[in-house]
Amino acid sequence: MFISFSEAETFLRNCKDAVIITHQTPDGDCIGAGFGLKDILAELGVRSRVVCSDPFPARYDFMTKDGAGEDFEPQTVIAVDIADENLMGKYKEIYGGRVQLCIDHHISNKNYAERTLLRGEATAACEVIYDLAKYMGVKITRHCAMCLYTGIATDSGCFKYDCTTPRAHEIAAEMMRSYDINFARINRYMFDVKSLGRMKLESYVTELMEEHLDGKLAIVAVTQDMMKELGISMEELEGFAPLTIQLEHAEVGILLRVREDGAYKCSFRSANDVNVSAICQTLGGGGHAKAAGCTMTGSLPEVKAALIESVRKALSE
Amino acid sequence: MFISFSEAETFLRNCKDAVIITHQTPDGDCIGAGFGLKDILAELGVRSRVVCSDPFPARYDFMTKDGAGEDFEPQTVIAVDIADENLMGKYKEIYGGRVQLCIDHHISNKNYAERTLLRGEATAACEVIYDLAKYMGVKITRHCAMCLYTGIATDSGCFKYDCTTPRAHEIAAEMMRSYDINFARINRYMFDVKSLGRMKLESYVTELMEEHLDGKLAIVAVTQDMMKELGISMEELEGFAPLTIQLEHAEVGILLRVREDGAYKCSFRSANDVNVSAICQTLGGGGHAKAAGCTMTGSLPEVKAALIESVRKALSE
Repeated sequence: MFISFSEAETFLRNCKDAVIITHQTPDGDCIGAGFGLKDILAELGVRSRVVCSDPFPARYDFMTKDGAGEDFEPQTVIAVDIADENLMGKYKEIYGGRVQLCIDHHISNKNYAERTLLRGEATAACEVIYDLAKYMGVKITRHCAMCLYTGIATDSGCFKYDCTTPRAHEIAAEMMRSYDINFARINRYMFDVKSLGRMKLESYVTELMEEHLDGKLAIVAVTQDMMKELGISMEELEGFAPLTIQLEHAEVGILLRVREDGAYKCSFRSANDVNVSAICQTLGGGGHAKAAGCTMTGSLPEVKAALIESVRKALSE
Repeated sequence: MFISFSEAETFLRNCKDAVIITHQTPDGDCIGAGFGLKDILAELGVRSRVVCSDPFPARYDFMTKDGAGEDFEPQTVIAVDIADENLMGKYKEIYGGRVQLCIDHHISNKNYAERTLLRGEATAACEVIYDLAKYMGVKITRHCAMCLYTGIATDSGCFKYDCTTPRAHEIAAEMMRSYDINFARINRYMFDVKSLGRMKLESYVTELMEEHLDGKLAIVAVTQDMMKELGISMEELEGFAPLTIQLEHAEVGILLRVREDGAYKCSFRSANDVNVSAICQTLGGGGHAKAAGCTMTGSLPEVKAALIESVRKALSE
């Protein structure tokens, strides 16, 4: 059942001993939403605990360091930023089918909870929680403001991406005016810093980058030998696909990884308007308009030639 | 003379045939301010021309492509985002001492113009111009909004840096609500894309990065031979100093460049609170708290050891 701010308020004001579930592979938005909501519940006199199937990465310490909460038998089960129960990881076994309130911003939300406060137009779950707190007139502490700012900033790429709403900017302005949040320091740790290992991996991948089609296509091909040299798995390397569309004039970027069986796993990214899902479908693959993939066989020159030709066709349409 | 919005309005409503000067080595803010103001003057029926001592880089084409303006003998001289006449480049010879209105946000503004509308607390000159246009009730076109958004976004590092004001966020929200500006595409070209040459240079520099003092100090040392191999000058390499403080735990980053005479030019950057100007002063150099420099002589191991020791001392204070 989708509910209103008023119904969410009634629920929160009357709940007790809540567990707040964040999604697996946690990011700034679910952690910010979890710990921000924990602060709001504390203002209401409700004790709560934030849980996650995976450990919270160290760069989020400023949100999580005061502890995820006391150990108690929960009377209330809340999920934040979780569109599908399968994203709860091991907590699905414990709380699956028992979520009483879900607060989310994903239009793909499966409506699995008893009550869902969904704002599909919001940049982040933290945007929904901020607006809910304002609606309820609950005091927002500085720590809560830092959590909610972080979720909005991380989900919007620091207000850079399409998904950024005017409301996200307005909330950032309100938080900067009302609380002395060290947003520049937060942003540095969220967006600018990298481990030396990550920097060197990115360098390696960049060194392999080739321009094709007058720079409109960037291709990076990584062999099994290279992955062994780098000590990185096929799966980890997936995270480097977006690097390909950092190339100045690239409309399409492709990361090619040679599998153990010799086939090529091709991850496509679109910088602007080219639908890479459509290209991948012509090659037996699929995906989303801006991120898609396919698998190819043959020699590396043959595979590259086929990929270049398929992108050339798509660009000329 | 520093003036108010009201006095600036009176001046702009009564001027004619204006030249708008932007600073040398133009950036998103001075170009946005110049072309944004040109649009506003057009609404007032005043023709204007935007000039710059250097060419406008291609990535700003979406602001500059409709032309810098007609050729006419200016009756009015306006400077935007220029704190000091020396930053006008070749236009100082023509318009030096003759600027009738300067619109700026640098607290260091030398007050060289007849009238200066200075808002030292603003993120960007574009923030001042937006607020002036709202004050005057002039229509802001979509092109004007894109120009002013770009200036605010670029000067704030896409709302990332300390200098970002709540007002900058509020203006971004207003522009997103009122005009259909393609802010995500603008941001991609301002912040995410790089030429293949730049990417490969960054990779090369990253490959040289060393961690010292438990990762709190990052050092990159570039020799004359490397610069020759890269085809890059000492001056161009300066732009890579900020890369050093992308290292995860770095408080201080140092870019060392070997000069032709064998001495080491050392560029310091501070990630957070360490005052690198103070460190450089102990080594015979100086600068600002977050960006400073010094020159060292000796062998590379000797120079590195001295730099590491001076940073170790500063960190232990």
